[in-house]
Amino acid sequence: MKIYGDLQSGNCYKIKLLCSLLDIKHEWIHVDILAGDTSSAAFLQKNPVGKIPLLELADGRYLSESNAILNFLAAGSELLPADSFDLAKVQQWQFFEQYSHEPYIAVARFIAKYLGLPEERRAEYQAKQSGGHKALAVMEKQLSVTPYLTGNTLTTADISLYGYTHVAHEGGFDLRDYPSVMAWLDRVQAHKKYIGMA
Amino acid sequence: MKIYGDLQSGNCYKIKLLCSLLDIKHEWIHVDILAGDTSSAAFLQKNPVGKIPLLELADGRYLSESNAILNFLAAGSELLPADSFDLAKVQQWQFFEQYSHEPYIAVARFIAKYLGLPEERRAEYQAKQSGGHKALAVMEKQLSVTPYLTGNTLTTADISLYGYTHVAHEGGFDLRDYPSVMAWLDRVQAHKKYIGMA
Repeated sequence: MKIYGDLQSGNCYKIKLLCSLLDIKHEWIHVDILAGDTSSAAFLQKNPVGKIPLLELADGRYLSESNAILNFLAAGSELLPADSFDLAKVQQWQFFEQYSHEPYIAVARFIAKYLGLPEERRAEYQAKQSGGHKALAVMEKQLSVTPYLTGNTLTTADISLYGYTHVAHEGGFDLRDYPSVMAWLDRVQAHKKYIGMA
Repeated sequence: MKIYGDLQSGNCYKIKLLCSLLDIKHEWIHVDILAGDTSSAAFLQKNPVGKIPLLELADGRYLSESNAILNFLAAGSELLPADSFDLAKVQQWQFFEQYSHEPYIAVARFIAKYLGLPEERRAEYQAKQSGGHKALAVMEKQLSVTPYLTGNTLTTADISLYGYTHVAHEGGFDLRDYPSVMAWLDRVQAHKKYIGMA
């Protein structure tokens, strides 16, 4: 099993973290986003969307989209619930992550950390702040009631949201306003076989 | 089972279409997005993210995010594969829809159809065109190889993508450039118990 990714990306780190938690053997193939590796003809043949992470199975089949990869790799493990409603709740949080969290927090972080907050993207960076805080407030509300996003145990939903939340400060988000989120970050980090971002 | 939604929204229509295809009995509760119903305190108590569609089970539990609702309602039916890789492929397309398709095609349609393409949003509307065409090209590539997005049969992935693709022209996208996508639209519409948007 090969995983194409760049550990500067929270979406890729999610997969690395899951593989560590579940002891999943894999070959990690570094793809440099900033150098444009995902736009090469060779990469687009593997994934026409031109995005990482990308999973390649031994039989040559490909799977893209970080959260779909997480759920595929976690199938049958304690990180993915068997009950159909609980499983749907995991997906609810993952779709929330891709639509209402990542486009604000990850993009603000990208502009600040990797592009150095250039003048021409400062307005966009500022515009991302309010959506990011809205997402963090939704997480805070849930995490003030349950230790993990879908209940009492760690699932792939937590891994999905952890990816960019634990580096949200790099996008200008002060997590001290979200004490339950901060306690949850500690809870995730306390797991045996936890590994940090690159 | 109650479903809160507004049939002007493709995300809500997806659920209505699935319920028709699978004969799922439900009470549809109209929520007017343009009137701001999703921002009311009463609605935010049901879904802190303030979005529709929203599913309410008989026991009072809630589930949000259109694609999570689709997969929950389709569990055990012919619309959701049992094989774990095939199931992951369904999710891959659904995450693609929420990240790389909906934010371009649905938003361009919203600006044009519901806001009447006002001058102050014209630049944003134009900016949405290229991302929308990129998403349609990815679909065209797959649908020129397989009749449905994940293979030979209709799944919730097709319903997810069908929602906004079949009204993409209302956002300025000419589907005649995508013959395989157009053939797929016809294929979905030919299903017994298919129903159109409001």
